Amino acid sequence: MSQSPTAFVPGHVTGFFSAHPDEDPTKAGSRGAGVALADGVEVRLEAGDGVELNGNPTGIEAVERVLDALRVTARVVVETDLPVGAGFGVSGAAALGAALATNAVFDRGLSENELVTIAHGAEVQAGTGLGDVVAGARGGVPVRLEPGAPAHGAMDGIPARGTVEYVSFGELRTEEIITGETAELTAAGRGALAALVEEPTTGTLMEASRRFAREAELLTPRVKEAIEDVSAAGGEAAMAMLGETVFALGTGLSDAGYDAERCGICRAGAHLR
Amino acid sequence: MSQSPTAFVPGHVTGFFSAHPDEDPTKAGSRGAGVALADGVEVRLEAGDGVELNGNPTGIEAVERVLDALRVTARVVVETDLPVGAGFGVSGAAALGAALATNAVFDRGLSENELVTIAHGAEVQAGTGLGDVVAGARGGVPVRLEPGAPAHGAMDGIPARGTVEYVSFGELRTEEIITGETAELTAAGRGALAALVEEPTTGTLMEASRRFAREAELLTPRVKEAIEDVSAAGGEAAMAMLGETVFALGTGLSDAGYDAERCGICRAGAHLR
Repeated sequence: MSQSPTAFVPGHVTGFFSAHPDEDPTKAGSRGAGVALADGVEVRLEAGDGVELNGNPTGIEAVERVLDALRVTARVVVETDLPVGAGFGVSGAAALGAALATNAVFDRGLSENELVTIAHGAEVQAGTGLGDVVAGARGGVPVRLEPGAPAHGAMDGIPARGTVEYVSFGELRTEEIITGETAELTAAGRGALAALVEEPTTGTLMEASRRFAREAELLTPRVKEAIEDVSAAGGEAAMAMLGETVFALGTGLSDAGYDAERCGICRAGAHLR
Repeated sequence: MSQSPTAFVPGHVTGFFSAHPDEDPTKAGSRGAGVALADGVEVRLEAGDGVELNGNPTGIEAVERVLDALRVTARVVVETDLPVGAGFGVSGAAALGAALATNAVFDRGLSENELVTIAHGAEVQAGTGLGDVVAGARGGVPVRLEPGAPAHGAMDGIPARGTVEYVSFGELRTEEIITGETAELTAAGRGALAALVEEPTTGTLMEASRRFAREAELLTPRVKEAIEDVSAAGGEAAMAMLGETVFALGTGLSDAGYDAERCGICRAGAHLR
């Protein structure tokens, strides 16, 4: 095993989505839109086995499935300052980072689309996400027009610059929501995507995301309050799917008095450092 | 006209390509592969009209076509340290940068795919390039699997990190080559792409690019010598299509005694700063 380069994958907050299951995990996925964050996940390999998250042994099924798919044994070291399980796409980012690092260390000779496909399929099969892998692979403000890995999906992006703020109040169980009843959620997600395609701006993204969270009945009291506070302070905020997390454009959250994290929009998609 | 943000578009050197003309400029394009450079083109708008390149009035047809398509009048200020007309995709980058800046300044509300499509079509119609716009929009080490703007084309990328060096001995006339007889060139380009898809690594990219330049009979004596010098010094170099330009991985050119420019691979595609 050669010296491992570090893979960086941006965090990704989804503002709205619709779930599109399929028996083929490379066709399954989500439509929707969100923001790739300069705060992200770093992944490197070491000799050994298992997964380590910020220094602690853990299990991330999507990561383990990536290593199985690439037929390697290694210890996957994941480091991130992002909240885990709170809508930042950490499991998908860890899976994609593991795919990039493994490809480099073990000379697997796979293309970026192939690695994204493996990580996306692993995340779908683990039931922990439907769109964060393809979004984190792209960077920017990704719009998922069609679900699935690169061979099946289609993406666009919203031109944007500047910073994003976020604050997290806790976890939501992604798996329960995306594998449960999704008819209302899907209808709300389709409406939000139609609005965003009609006018692909960050303003529309935030407005469509707020409407989605209301219509899909995903707002928690703390999230609702924070979004209203940002709005009252003249800013734009929305809920990150799926976490008890609020993200805002610019300095929207700190302007409203919240102790928020701030970072840039990540222009680059996942890559080796 | 609001204050103009600056658009940045990476330079792009193509190692090999095949030309695919079509009456529809959004379907026309090229297959091929290259490297997006952290050295790029900055574009902003000012009041007035015309195009300015590094402080001097000039004409860049692709840029003028972008402004026409977006129905605006403005002075387009283009700045770059890259050699012009020498295989760095400066005209396509200027066109894409103009599209991004115009969309922001005049609130056109277009998506990234829409802006790429406009710039790609303008570049094709101007006859100055076939693939630099979609490559510069993506960043990284882009592989153009299918020709055309986002709705028709398909792309992949080669996982890579590190630096690139380049040296330019002068211009080649892009327009004459890509609008002239291209059967040999297309056959050579198809062979190179097949090799790269089989093994998508930077090593294969460079090797396939060298074979392409030989088979398509595009090598000039100075380019041939520089590539051989880099090879003799243990490095990997190839010719940038279409310029009298050589690019190398890592420090290949300076290791061979050339006074080369050095920059990173640009992980991010075109974006507003």
